[in-house]
Amino acid sequence: MKKIYLDHAATTPVDNEVLNAMMPYFSEKFGNASSLHSFGREAKDALEASRKKIASLINAKVSEIIFTSGGTESNNIAIKGVAFANKNKGNHIITSKIEHHAVLEPCRWLEKHGFKITYLNVDSDGLINLNELEKAITKDTILVSIMHANNEIGTIQSIEEIGKICRNHKIYFHTDAVQSFGKEKIDARKMNIDLLSASSHKLYGPKGTGLLYVGQDVNIESISHGGGHEHNLRSGTENIPGIVGFAKASELACKDMEKENNRQKILRNKTIKKLLEIEGTKLNGHATRRLANNINVSFKNIEGEALLIRLDEKGIAASTGSACSTKSLEPSHVLSAIGLKHEQAHGSLRLTLGKENTEKDMDYVIDELIKIINSLRKISPFKKF
Amino acid sequence: MKKIYLDHAATTPVDNEVLNAMMPYFSEKFGNASSLHSFGREAKDALEASRKKIASLINAKVSEIIFTSGGTESNNIAIKGVAFANKNKGNHIITSKIEHHAVLEPCRWLEKHGFKITYLNVDSDGLINLNELEKAITKDTILVSIMHANNEIGTIQSIEEIGKICRNHKIYFHTDAVQSFGKEKIDARKMNIDLLSASSHKLYGPKGTGLLYVGQDVNIESISHGGGHEHNLRSGTENIPGIVGFAKASELACKDMEKENNRQKILRNKTIKKLLEIEGTKLNGHATRRLANNINVSFKNIEGEALLIRLDEKGIAASTGSACSTKSLEPSHVLSAIGLKHEQAHGSLRLTLGKENTEKDMDYVIDELIKIINSLRKISPFKKF
Repeated sequence: MKKIYLDHAATTPVDNEVLNAMMPYFSEKFGNASSLHSFGREAKDALEASRKKIASLINAKVSEIIFTSGGTESNNIAIKGVAFANKNKGNHIITSKIEHHAVLEPCRWLEKHGFKITYLNVDSDGLINLNELEKAITKDTILVSIMHANNEIGTIQSIEEIGKICRNHKIYFHTDAVQSFGKEKIDARKMNIDLLSASSHKLYGPKGTGLLYVGQDVNIESISHGGGHEHNLRSGTENIPGIVGFAKASELACKDMEKENNRQKILRNKTIKKLLEIEGTKLNGHATRRLANNINVSFKNIEGEALLIRLDEKGIAASTGSACSTKSLEPSHVLSAIGLKHEQAHGSLRLTLGKENTEKDMDYVIDELIKIINSLRKISPFKKF
Repeated sequence: MKKIYLDHAATTPVDNEVLNAMMPYFSEKFGNASSLHSFGREAKDALEASRKKIASLINAKVSEIIFTSGGTESNNIAIKGVAFANKNKGNHIITSKIEHHAVLEPCRWLEKHGFKITYLNVDSDGLINLNELEKAITKDTILVSIMHANNEIGTIQSIEEIGKICRNHKIYFHTDAVQSFGKEKIDARKMNIDLLSASSHKLYGPKGTGLLYVGQDVNIESISHGGGHEHNLRSGTENIPGIVGFAKASELACKDMEKENNRQKILRNKTIKKLLEIEGTKLNGHATRRLANNINVSFKNIEGEALLIRLDEKGIAASTGSACSTKSLEPSHVLSAIGLKHEQAHGSLRLTLGKENTEKDMDYVIDELIKIINSLRKISPFKKF
């Protein structure tokens, strides 16, 4: 049975070209970038070339890119690192209710350590209100952390405008760009971004590698301590194969971005249109201001998990809510924040497209989905259609 | 020119068998271990099989192994995680002066946050004194962190006895085993270890992966926050290829440990003997209680960096002090702690053997070293021999 992977927001396969770029760094050019000999220099050169490559893609300076072990670590460094370094200026941070756990949990932890957090509401499309953001700012506000694109519903925030508000108020602006990096154009300077998190494995790069962009004027301190690597912001031997792969993956993603986005948008729109023809179906997230690869719908009187299992039996990999919160039975905090009721959230399905998905794939998925929905509704204990 | 790599304490090449084990997990079995579909289950299965494999090697329970991004992160979690979780019991931690920066720096950071740290002295061989350890314990002591084997001089501490003292006083015992894991036998239960850090890339596994053993009774809290992976102790999508590689590397290292240690000991002892025949040469670290692969000597009236450069020109990769501290001009804190004067520390050379180094390699290295030492001493501004 052919497998159709539609969970690219959870992770992606490593691209062949990326893996080829990584391969020499496992067993041949394997040095520690801190070593003084030729093996070390080789590793250091690869590290700095990767940094330069990525910096150029987001209009950052080379010294503004810090490599980390992934998006979660980047978000932790950004939020706690700025909070602790600037606590003499204030103890207030603004974020939104639909952030990833890797932003929300550091914020909740900071609440236990003397910080105050405002969790902004979002509208039914998942957008924050810029007036509300501005009103939430106090003299104690030191940081605003608003994600670029949401991992569940794909809604893209007005990052440039948010950044402008922060700049006007002299508040640092962090954006979790784990879902948008390599999918949406990012210009750190133009978009007024002070800190930006990204993760390699979301864009056909390897797992275990991420980055934090830290603008040169940002006052930040390290939250993990050791040998002082990465401008003293992230200690630990650099994962050179991972970093080389991340840089290659970023380069490929940015090169093909417009073309691939256009292709995916057509597939996405067609799929959404077909799914909305099923009775009792609702699109989650903004109709147009959403990631090209994101489809998120709720089916009335359907259990998301049952849907996933049936799709899985047909070789289709999908998600209900975020993959990171599958251990919980609580409805997704994102779907709750955009106003979905418990049962709507539980009946949600996320399909996130990737470059290997074809129109034929999606036709098959739509056909199977219609069949599965009909079949599940027949056995549903809820009101029948 | 043939290259001879003698810096295995800094990092190692990924073993071919390890890389082969990793390969399917980059682009085929690439799922996110949190996902509910077949790709996710495949990843989860690989994750848990790796955990089981490593747990069995150190007599740990499967639930006691936490995967991290490396040794630095493991040490940070262990030390700060235990400190914060047990601060109601006391605020005192005992460590030694010769720990890796990834232990010392978290301790120094804790000093700024209300904790008191005792940095134990070591003798001229690099061993802590068990009586001094016991005397340092107060009613406020919550944690002892003493490394298993030192990264610079290779000295192996009496871990089992240290663990016993801690157990008797009901204090948690953490050991940084980054250098010893896969090289010395480790039995977490028999050795009374509560927490143990290890890193994959020191034993022919990939960079970017480490582990923390956390005994089931240890009260510890997370220091980074997010999706709640790894028993809520280390959030972030698991690096499956890295973890699979780490498990395979650990398995291989433990399988060949005794044989390879015996082989390296012969090479090590012969090399040390030959080097000590050079006038004005001193062995650093314990003569016998040292890692089988560690050679660390000081040459009088020699600059370590000049030595490294000359060796590098001959294709020989070595180290002076720890690779992690090459950014600093300060003499190694380890060599200072065992009583070396500034100039002795600066004239130090570390050669750390690996499984690919042969007797012929070492004969070449010894010959070249003798020539280089003689040549450098001829041009030395110091007193001539």
